[in-house]
Amino acid sequence: MSNDYPTSDALAAKVADQLSYNADGLIAAIAQQQDGDSDGLGGEILMMAWMNRDAVIETLTTGRVCYFSRSRSKLWRKGESSGQVQSLIDFRWDCDSDTVLVLVDQKGVACHTGRRNCFYKSVRGGNVTNIAEVEVSPDDLYG
Amino acid sequence: MSNDYPTSDALAAKVADQLSYNADGLIAAIAQQQDGDSDGLGGEILMMAWMNRDAVIETLTTGRVCYFSRSRSKLWRKGESSGQVQSLIDFRWDCDSDTVLVLVDQKGVACHTGRRNCFYKSVRGGNVTNIAEVEVSPDDLYG
Repeated sequence: MSNDYPTSDALAAKVADQLSYNADGLIAAIAQQQDGDSDGLGGEILMMAWMNRDAVIETLTTGRVCYFSRSRSKLWRKGESSGQVQSLIDFRWDCDSDTVLVLVDQKGVACHTGRRNCFYKSVRGGNVTNIAEVEVSPDDLYG
Repeated sequence: MSNDYPTSDALAAKVADQLSYNADGLIAAIAQQQDGDSDGLGGEILMMAWMNRDAVIETLTTGRVCYFSRSRSKLWRKGESSGQVQSLIDFRWDCDSDTVLVLVDQKGVACHTGRRNCFYKSVRGGNVTNIAEVEVSPDDLYG
């Protein structure tokens, strides 16, 4: 699989053309930690963010995952501030072509709170609870 | 974990109140097949869809995953036509409270194309390719 990424500019454009973007020009992108199994399935869901067409192309042609920050209205090269980059292992999209799944090798932690992944809120024992610990201080990530 | 679901009506309302819905009243929901490991991590990403507040509450209080169909503008009880229901194992949400992750036990196939999951398009050998086979004919699912 590793021979497939990064892609050529032409192939990246072909992929980007097949995707369906919403009215804001964005497509949802789920990042999943790649485990060692051969088909790339299995592994922790790290985060969900958004890509625009330029982010799709940059991700494919560089092999580093790039999102589009809705709050900052610009490309968000994951890890550019924190160093917690995501190396692309596989780029997939769904039946409706309106959601991307990137299989990645996450360096460090994915969540800006310093947790390994963003999905740490759940229900336990009849109440809302945080189910994951902070592993790295956000001050260390962004200080 | 199984003792936590289904939840009471009161706890479901508490969870629903903590979530951030977009301008259309919806929140993105990722469904991941639960594997056997104790923390519920690992497993195939099945699909991404949307929930409104009512779908969140129905999912939590019934233990069966319910989405909101944007095309039909109504609650979409996953499997109501196809029989391919998703039993809820864990309901999580992310740091920004704008994405839900449901860990599920998927009966049969998740994708309306008859594939096990929706993320079957990718890049192989320099071209766009389907990387998963149809396991059940859509005619059998919806016929």
